[in-house]
Amino acid sequence: MAIITLTTDFGYKDHFVGAIKGTIYSELEDAKIVDISHAISPFNIQECAYILKNSYKAFPKGTIHIVGVDAECTEENQHLAVYVDGHYFILANNGVSSLITSEIKPDKIVELKIPNPQPGAFPVLEIFVKVACHIARGGTLEVVGKKFDDLKELKEFAPRITNDGNTIAGSVIYIDNYGNVVTNIQKSLFEAYRKGRNFELLARNKKLTRIENNYSDIIDFNLDRNQRKGPGDLLALFNSANYIELAIYKSDPNTVGSASSLLGLDYRDTVTINFL
Amino acid sequence: MAIITLTTDFGYKDHFVGAIKGTIYSELEDAKIVDISHAISPFNIQECAYILKNSYKAFPKGTIHIVGVDAECTEENQHLAVYVDGHYFILANNGVSSLITSEIKPDKIVELKIPNPQPGAFPVLEIFVKVACHIARGGTLEVVGKKFDDLKELKEFAPRITNDGNTIAGSVIYIDNYGNVVTNIQKSLFEAYRKGRNFELLARNKKLTRIENNYSDIIDFNLDRNQRKGPGDLLALFNSANYIELAIYKSDPNTVGSASSLLGLDYRDTVTINFL
Amino acid sequence: MAIITLTTDFGYKDHFVGAIKGTIYSELEDAKIVDISHAISPFNIQECAYILKNSYKAFPKGTIHIVGVDAECTEENQHLAVYVDGHYFILANNGVSSLITSEIKPDKIVELKIPNPQPGAFPVLEIFVKVACHIARGGTLEVVGKKFDDLKELKEFAPRITNDGNTIAGSVIYIDNYGNVVTNIQKSLFEAYRKGRNFELLARNKKLTRIENNYSDIIDFNLDRNQRKGPGDLLALFNSANYIELAIYKSDPNTVGSASSLLGLDYRDTVTINFL
Repeated sequence: MAIITLTTDFGYKDHFVGAIKGTIYSELEDAKIVDISHAISPFNIQECAYILKNSYKAFPKGTIHIVGVDAECTEENQHLAVYVDGHYFILANNGVSSLITSEIKPDKIVELKIPNPQPGAFPVLEIFVKVACHIARGGTLEVVGKKFDDLKELKEFAPRITNDGNTIAGSVIYIDNYGNVVTNIQKSLFEAYRKGRNFELLARNKKLTRIENNYSDIIDFNLDRNQRKGPGDLLALFNSANYIELAIYKSDPNTVGSASSLLGLDYRDTVTINFL
Repeated sequence: MAIITLTTDFGYKDHFVGAIKGTIYSELEDAKIVDISHAISPFNIQECAYILKNSYKAFPKGTIHIVGVDAECTEENQHLAVYVDGHYFILANNGVSSLITSEIKPDKIVELKIPNPQPGAFPVLEIFVKVACHIARGGTLEVVGKKFDDLKELKEFAPRITNDGNTIAGSVIYIDNYGNVVTNIQKSLFEAYRKGRNFELLARNKKLTRIENNYSDIIDFNLDRNQRKGPGDLLALFNSANYIELAIYKSDPNTVGSASSLLGLDYRDTVTINFL
Repeated sequence: MAIITLTTDFGYKDHFVGAIKGTIYSELEDAKIVDISHAISPFNIQECAYILKNSYKAFPKGTIHIVGVDAECTEENQHLAVYVDGHYFILANNGVSSLITSEIKPDKIVELKIPNPQPGAFPVLEIFVKVACHIARGGTLEVVGKKFDDLKELKEFAPRITNDGNTIAGSVIYIDNYGNVVTNIQKSLFEAYRKGRNFELLARNKKLTRIENNYSDIIDFNLDRNQRKGPGDLLALFNSANYIELAIYKSDPNTVGSASSLLGLDYRDTVTINFL
């Protein structure tokens, strides 16, 4: 049976996630449910998209992803099921879909129409779970919705590039568990404009001239331990999702601080690359 | 095989939850374990009850719920298994049971008597898990305990109603992941005393005269976006658990604040409704 | 099929854990994955060891434990698979292995050699998961690595004992979800040096002369409720992992404070026992 994943801003304390799982198991005794994250910042669809974009492909084709962020149905925020890249996403039309699979055109989109939906303030439980179980049982999208063409697109989160191609102005899209700062500048974009040139990366009052492939690439193991770089040193990295990331080597945000706190960089702040 | 759920104040860092799951799988290879929450505030049985009350019914009949909050056995806090509403609850006699299923009388209650219990400070692992596995294998309550009649009742958390029926004085029983404030006033109680009258809901220095059914009911989609209500606006709501809730539309407690922080409402604070 | 457990410092928000689970399910449709903890403090291998040491034995023999803390491969931090006490641990050679099973010699250790590993900054996904799935399918360690003899040992975390055997100087190794403070002094060591003598336990400016077996042992149920000890009182305890722990009875760190905050005790701070 297809896996059902959950990505929400419900947190880990409230009863919502438990109620969803109980409802799924009540409908599908052998359901396989995987939590991707319930710690999305409330209503933050960009964070939600970053997390889903970098995890959904790991799941088998046919996996059903319930996206419980900003999911209340309104006339401007329709409930949708989107089939794209071999995966099903059940979500609201708030733009998150265009951010998850920005490079891939969906194969099918339907607006959900459930007969006799329960009224109330918990649509993920009342609508999304029903649709997910329907798909997991092998049901088609046509049964639960009608064709939809008006997928909301959010474009404002792309890096800007100067006309001369000499500068990329990116911004912070995610701050991870280590307080490392992820920008929206992908390695492929960076290399396309770099064309082998030197560069400087500017973040607040810091300048970096190298981008590592592994965190420990900043360490020269030929040096004595007390002469090496190490915990506390700043670096730039192509992270495992292929975005440029600013990191403090072995940072713990709760003790020594992190790239975010030490550089003073938060969501939407600017990081600039000048090619020389 | 019956599902075993876990609701505890053990948090998500310590080894307790891992040890419990390992022990269950060691006893029952095909166990199905579902986390309801491990983020109950330490020893807060009211919070625990609110979460369980609003999630247990979603699970199939016969589900076994381990309640690991304030579970140390003392002569005043016996270990019990309670069968009620088709579900099994394994918990201590600290009053949480009466709060979970306040309207329903248990069909069976036993005080747990395990032969040769391991001494030590982790009774949920040593006692509750053993009993849960026994029930999951189809065992009866009579084998693991003896009939018990002295279920502790906690009544102090009900709203008070004035003799003239014109005022309900409720209190805050839960603050959710969005910082929304849940009162102990249920929709059914509210409607029973309202009898179609107008009303004012008073919370600190705020007065509300409407209670919505959906968060977005405060928005008039006929207006231009910049004239509408929206993120940051206060509302009252019958939430999905049918309690009156005070919410800030699309609040993120970590950035813009929440109903709890903005109104200054915390556990046990008073919310009053006057019928006019 | 063998259980695969996950113990990491990835937190509960980022996409890492979701990506790992998706990858495991893509390789092994019937995998059984159990989260032990993802809330290890970043790069804190002692905390990681305490959690694993006190949970791994609960799982069936043959369980595979992925340890995703400080796992980047360097020439000084090799990737290993360790078979010890009937369990498999997949981890980096950063000393955590010697802390998890300090009393037991591993039966087999191999340094992992995966053909054509993907480059990048996420070795737990790219290497550890592959090896775990290989073992879960019944594969041998010899296929994925070569014999390794240089397991890093960390000895600095043991308590010190004076030559006359009259004093044990321990230190704080863990602070749990309740803010209780766990020392590195095990009950067996304490009893071996105590030899029936009285003692005083010194923690900051507090002195204790008893160590309880249950939290509620401090309460005399023969007294009236308002004369008893209770919430807020300090005690020492042999905890369920058999370490000496300092606890505040029914403490909630977010409201009334905890042993850690009230005593001002943090990681590595000293707790002394003098035998009299």
